[in-house]
Amino acid sequence: MSVLEKAAVVVPTYEGDFVLQEDLLLECGRTLVRPVLHYAVYGRLNEARSNAVLVCHALSGSALVGGWWPELFGDESKSAGDRIGELAGDGEDGGVRSATGIVDLSRDCVVCVNLLGSCYGSTGPGSLDPETGSVYGRNFPLVSIRDNVRAQAQLLDSLCIAKIPLAIGGSIGAMQALEWTILYPERVERAVVIAVAPLNAMGLALNHLQRQAIVDDPDWQGGNYTAGQQTGEGGNSFKGLALARRIAMLSYKSPVLFAERFGRNPNRNGEDPWGLGNDGEGLIGGRFDVGGFLDYQGRRFLERFDANSYLAILRMMDTWDPARGYRTAEEAYGRILARLTFVGISSDWLFPPGDVQILAKTIQAAGVAAEYCEMKTDHGHDAFLAEQVELVRLLNLAE
Amino acid sequence: MSVLEKAAVVVPTYEGDFVLQEDLLLECGRTLVRPVLHYAVYGRLNEARSNAVLVCHALSGSALVGGWWPELFGDESKSAGDRIGELAGDGEDGGVRSATGIVDLSRDCVVCVNLLGSCYGSTGPGSLDPETGSVYGRNFPLVSIRDNVRAQAQLLDSLCIAKIPLAIGGSIGAMQALEWTILYPERVERAVVIAVAPLNAMGLALNHLQRQAIVDDPDWQGGNYTAGQQTGEGGNSFKGLALARRIAMLSYKSPVLFAERFGRNPNRNGEDPWGLGNDGEGLIGGRFDVGGFLDYQGRRFLERFDANSYLAILRMMDTWDPARGYRTAEEAYGRILARLTFVGISSDWLFPPGDVQILAKTIQAAGVAAEYCEMKTDHGHDAFLAEQVELVRLLNLAE
Repeated sequence: MSVLEKAAVVVPTYEGDFVLQEDLLLECGRTLVRPVLHYAVYGRLNEARSNAVLVCHALSGSALVGGWWPELFGDESKSAGDRIGELAGDGEDGGVRSATGIVDLSRDCVVCVNLLGSCYGSTGPGSLDPETGSVYGRNFPLVSIRDNVRAQAQLLDSLCIAKIPLAIGGSIGAMQALEWTILYPERVERAVVIAVAPLNAMGLALNHLQRQAIVDDPDWQGGNYTAGQQTGEGGNSFKGLALARRIAMLSYKSPVLFAERFGRNPNRNGEDPWGLGNDGEGLIGGRFDVGGFLDYQGRRFLERFDANSYLAILRMMDTWDPARGYRTAEEAYGRILARLTFVGISSDWLFPPGDVQILAKTIQAAGVAAEYCEMKTDHGHDAFLAEQVELVRLLNLAE
Repeated sequence: MSVLEKAAVVVPTYEGDFVLQEDLLLECGRTLVRPVLHYAVYGRLNEARSNAVLVCHALSGSALVGGWWPELFGDESKSAGDRIGELAGDGEDGGVRSATGIVDLSRDCVVCVNLLGSCYGSTGPGSLDPETGSVYGRNFPLVSIRDNVRAQAQLLDSLCIAKIPLAIGGSIGAMQALEWTILYPERVERAVVIAVAPLNAMGLALNHLQRQAIVDDPDWQGGNYTAGQQTGEGGNSFKGLALARRIAMLSYKSPVLFAERFGRNPNRNGEDPWGLGNDGEGLIGGRFDVGGFLDYQGRRFLERFDANSYLAILRMMDTWDPARGYRTAEEAYGRILARLTFVGISSDWLFPPGDVQILAKTIQAAGVAAEYCEMKTDHGHDAFLAEQVELVRLLNLAE
């Protein structure tokens, strides 16, 4: 742990690729030939290989959970001087896995696997299709959440991890965590399922418009662009992907947060919404502050994400229904042996807390030890990443 | 009234253009040279010219309020066999202006004026700029709500209408109705201001993304397309405008309405979200029902609206703040002599009822006779158009 103890952002002890030993037959009927899972390990597996915490990532995440969710790791995992050091006095001995985080690398070993379909190392639309020798592009098949979990199970098999004490994730990460408890009941002791339910009609609508923004963009080229263009190196602007990200960003935040942060203020760079725009035109004035924020988010996203991967994961998100394929919801949920903690986020309008609670109740009704708790926050959907203190406090209470 | 009595949709007694006698100096500092206001009149002005009800339209409306808001007109205005005939028994003698509608053409004369910037007859981005001899296009200036109301006042002057018993509108229409009471306190007896407040940060964000969808579209051609292309006749698809409309549609409806109407159902045309899309590609599957609905709305919108007009009215909506330009809000609102009825819509997330109520209270605090009431509905923002019965009932109570 000596390296980690000095690191401000948690770095993995291992990062690498696992090639599935067999082709992966997908729910949609197609097959991925020997797909690759890119994954990262933080901390060390104990001798019994019984301390692996599975963290599942959301739409634009990667295996490097230490980068996108550093607050997950308690102070025990890191130096006292890092960004959450100030919280060291909170919740001590409260029964959580870590006093200040959710995992403690002095005890836990964190495993995080990049989603199939993503652009961070696992097989995705930018990968070569071994059957054709060409990049998958728009032919990349629908890889479901369930397909991903089945692939992840093979990775854990290869690491000789029979059972995990905890699977945790928010949003699409929570879809995977819950799916794990249904597909592999004997292998998961506890799951923390944050801010998720089968996507409702407004969520499907938001995803649909994001998809349209991408496919309407001539730079997307029907999905058959080259690798350099994917990352913006080809000079293509991929405005559609930037717009998709900005639409999504509305759903990750809340009206209250936007009102507090941006109000009706002009963009902080000095643009004047009541004046002319940068080009002196009358139809488009200077931006308000919230417009400047969104544009920045869109621009940044182009530097790190791929349009086809975005489409692949939108479909994964759209189609997830944990009871699908079972005769009844009870049959699906009745399989679960893990203890479940559902977390709704009070200001989440992408996965409203009411939807999360209904899912929790449905699963309870199937005889599962499932509890529901709610983060009270104005932040919106991604509060689980932004407001770690409150999340740890809640999980502390839920222990 | 004989013609109207047989009409299922209310038709105007007059529809025409008014050319302003002078150039219109705009708030932004630019001038519109002798702009045209297209307007419609329903019913007849009485001898005293004291019965003109001003109805103000919202983003995509026109002067033909009898077409886009036929429910406004009570049964007294129309035949018994039309679409609201079944409501004839409700609210009789309740003190509203009309038992079943809001206006009664046997007594009232309705005037509705197309917004400057729109594409339904008033001067807009598709008009010729007399100074250059070319179409305004992207050079069309910011014409504010206040500019519009000042132009409308000149039209009413020309009709010798000194005072109006009622100004009414929802959304951008409500911005005009309220602005009338501030700019011309002596001329308005009552205003009904539905589902509006200065746009909050989430609303500004939604508008910003709609604007981006349009300007990112190559078919928009930097705003300098030709008239035929505007209406789709040029074969241009204007996908950006269709996307903008679909984003807006999310904000006009509510999550509950979408859940009830569409749920997670596959598109009713038989597409399969779990299967391949129409092109057989894997990245884009069949649509869910809500996606099919939104696409239909986007397509229909292209047939009837212009991209540059959309941009012009977005700016008008963004920049509206009735207190702007006054030293204090109290100074602005203290001018009002009309009796005001504010209507919030419980499920509106574009102009949340809380924002409407705050505006009403601020105006009350300035000593104005302003009341607030709320439509309880799951419909969302455009419930004022969709759920007329409830609106009439509320205004009935508010009389």
